[in-house]
Amino acid sequence: MDKKTFIIKGDICYSESLDEIKTFENHYLVCEGGKIQGVFPEIPEKFSGVPTENFEGQLVIPGFTDLHLHAPQYAFRSVGMDEELLEWLQARAFPEEARYEDLEYADRAYGIFAEDMKRGATTRACMFGTLHPEATLLLMEKMEATGLVTFVGKVNMDRNSPDILRETKEESAKNTLRWLDGAKGKFKRTHPILTPRFIPSCSDGLMEELGRIRREYRLPVQSHLSENQGEIAWVRKLCPDASCYGDAYLRWGMLGGELPAIMAHCVYSGETERRLMRENGTFVAHCPQSNMNLASGIAPIRRYLEEGLRVGLGSDVAGGTTASMLRCVTDAISVSKLWWRLKDEDCRPLTVPEAFFLGTKGGGAFFGKAGSFEPGYEADILVLDESRIPWPGHFSLRERLERFLYLGDDRDVLHKYVAGERLF
Amino acid sequence: MDKKTFIIKGDICYSESLDEIKTFENHYLVCEGGKIQGVFPEIPEKFSGVPTENFEGQLVIPGFTDLHLHAPQYAFRSVGMDEELLEWLQARAFPEEARYEDLEYADRAYGIFAEDMKRGATTRACMFGTLHPEATLLLMEKMEATGLVTFVGKVNMDRNSPDILRETKEESAKNTLRWLDGAKGKFKRTHPILTPRFIPSCSDGLMEELGRIRREYRLPVQSHLSENQGEIAWVRKLCPDASCYGDAYLRWGMLGGELPAIMAHCVYSGETERRLMRENGTFVAHCPQSNMNLASGIAPIRRYLEEGLRVGLGSDVAGGTTASMLRCVTDAISVSKLWWRLKDEDCRPLTVPEAFFLGTKGGGAFFGKAGSFEPGYEADILVLDESRIPWPGHFSLRERLERFLYLGDDRDVLHKYVAGERLF
Repeated sequence: MDKKTFIIKGDICYSESLDEIKTFENHYLVCEGGKIQGVFPEIPEKFSGVPTENFEGQLVIPGFTDLHLHAPQYAFRSVGMDEELLEWLQARAFPEEARYEDLEYADRAYGIFAEDMKRGATTRACMFGTLHPEATLLLMEKMEATGLVTFVGKVNMDRNSPDILRETKEESAKNTLRWLDGAKGKFKRTHPILTPRFIPSCSDGLMEELGRIRREYRLPVQSHLSENQGEIAWVRKLCPDASCYGDAYLRWGMLGGELPAIMAHCVYSGETERRLMRENGTFVAHCPQSNMNLASGIAPIRRYLEEGLRVGLGSDVAGGTTASMLRCVTDAISVSKLWWRLKDEDCRPLTVPEAFFLGTKGGGAFFGKAGSFEPGYEADILVLDESRIPWPGHFSLRERLERFLYLGDDRDVLHKYVAGERLF
Repeated sequence: MDKKTFIIKGDICYSESLDEIKTFENHYLVCEGGKIQGVFPEIPEKFSGVPTENFEGQLVIPGFTDLHLHAPQYAFRSVGMDEELLEWLQARAFPEEARYEDLEYADRAYGIFAEDMKRGATTRACMFGTLHPEATLLLMEKMEATGLVTFVGKVNMDRNSPDILRETKEESAKNTLRWLDGAKGKFKRTHPILTPRFIPSCSDGLMEELGRIRREYRLPVQSHLSENQGEIAWVRKLCPDASCYGDAYLRWGMLGGELPAIMAHCVYSGETERRLMRENGTFVAHCPQSNMNLASGIAPIRRYLEEGLRVGLGSDVAGGTTASMLRCVTDAISVSKLWWRLKDEDCRPLTVPEAFFLGTKGGGAFFGKAGSFEPGYEADILVLDESRIPWPGHFSLRERLERFLYLGDDRDVLHKYVAGERLF
């Protein structure tokens, strides 16, 4: 029997839909060949010989998907948070990213990043690298070694960027191909994703080139959309013909469609933009903490969900100060409460089941069947230890999960499985 | 030489004012008899024989003051956070607090609480107990044993409360005296503070009794003020003659004056209320996380500071999910950014120096000279270990402090001193 076939006994929680968290105390989670077979009160006859791990009394939940973060920014997360987006990009993000030309620095910085990603509650992630092909390949190697399943992108940027962090259109296209060729056949669980930084950083000519590469290599894409009012005004000037910021991506085939796309933030997406995203199946990466830290605002996520948009969560390190997806889930709830209180009384706050869904199955959908324990899903499993945060009375399993989302952290992740493979 | 006379070598940061964090790399912090003598590049001649602890390369900062939290709610923090204030009080807070009549339960629950308070970054705190005199004395014993300096209050409530958690006016006054007499002369660093829960819970008759007790025993007072719109409307009905919610406290002598007062929240304090607080030297306990969790709103703290109000920070467990004052400091920054972005463009966000000041010297002022390293201040000192959160490049000391505020937690507090006494 292969190592990816096993049974876990514990207190099991997962989402099927936004409305409800399924909870099963002292049940058996059956995994066969890396795929979930189901949750059962007793071990079914047909799985009777399967090795069983007993995590009785411990929480067992699906792993989280981080739909948006910047790996090179991890090194300076939580510094310079008094600055706003465009100022912060110039003063912090760009100079720091420029350092990744130095592979020795990249090795040190990405080493710290990968180690933390491995330890935390994230099992899948989509991340930006820098514009450097070699450093991005190095990042992919490090992510591969963690055991997480990830999409990693070499960033493209040929305008409105500092001299130390800019390519020409030609270099950008050539480096992208070099990076893609370097990654080819090399990784099992680490995939390339096309990554134009955002419209202000990419000329029309570059977007056209990237569109070609995207079609040829059949790549998904990730970028930023409608994060900040200043940015939106800027895009309006740069793309006067686009009906909205999202349209500026759409015209280069970068908003989704057959090849999926993740757009981070969408704080200020208007009606047209939301329609375009719906039509193209775009994934919205909601990054609540980053939107606070950079004073961008609050994305009205309930509206997006009501309209049928696909939504997941992103830590957006280093707009977000931490890669913790537990924090990301609870921040999504917190900011939705403020939106409701301060801006729109008709837009009810997100609930714990809704935010938990977004952090697991919502973002996991970008990877196919990930982030749930329904049969056929990838076996991304966290076994969580609550002994650091004891309580004196009684809680239901549903309450224990809520409590863990707010209070748990990386030190409480006892075991982690990704696609049936145990990482620790 | 007494144990409270020592020198600490390290990377020292503290606030004197809101504007600036003083930083001294590789300096000496001199403490004599529990009081700070100053920060020096070399050990001054007159202190040459004083024992020196070498924490080179480690952050050394003042301890934090938590101006507002509910000790009995610690047991159920982070559960039921989808509810709003008044609903949450009825469904969660009141039934849980009623359990503290059972001293065995209180012992277990307060034991967990005290242990966590000891380990964290808080050196001083003002907290609510329950209405039970015995359980509140037990809480005081446990806090005394931690080494923290605290004010602890037996809660008073004789109306609009469930049967399981209500006293008559007479019982409330009698139990308050019993509690005060029980605490008399018993504690070195644990002080009683008068604690009418909030206006809706206390009849006029009870407030009158408590006013008498306050004057006789010369007690400071803590309560809640203008947290939520529903609550404010309720107080308007209950006290039709009061010019504002704050005035309803003032008329019973509970807003400060000669004997200081802490009012938690002040999210919706209007002009009159702010004037009354200024005139009475009221301490505002700003509780940003609680105000998000219970969807109360955002207190425009910069305005209050500009007007000269005294402000400190409160975790408000269990409106807040955690007692971490590091989290509280950074949450104060985060919500101020949203206030600026969503509600008032003229009210600039709080900066790292401002929020750090509020968490240390701002709230510490309630205890006299606490929360800074200026000469004459109580030696409340944290030695912080950043090794769990390594970084690949170079940061200034100021940047390291910001980073620690966002990323640090209880496991990173290496040593803690309160009033010169080393707790661990």
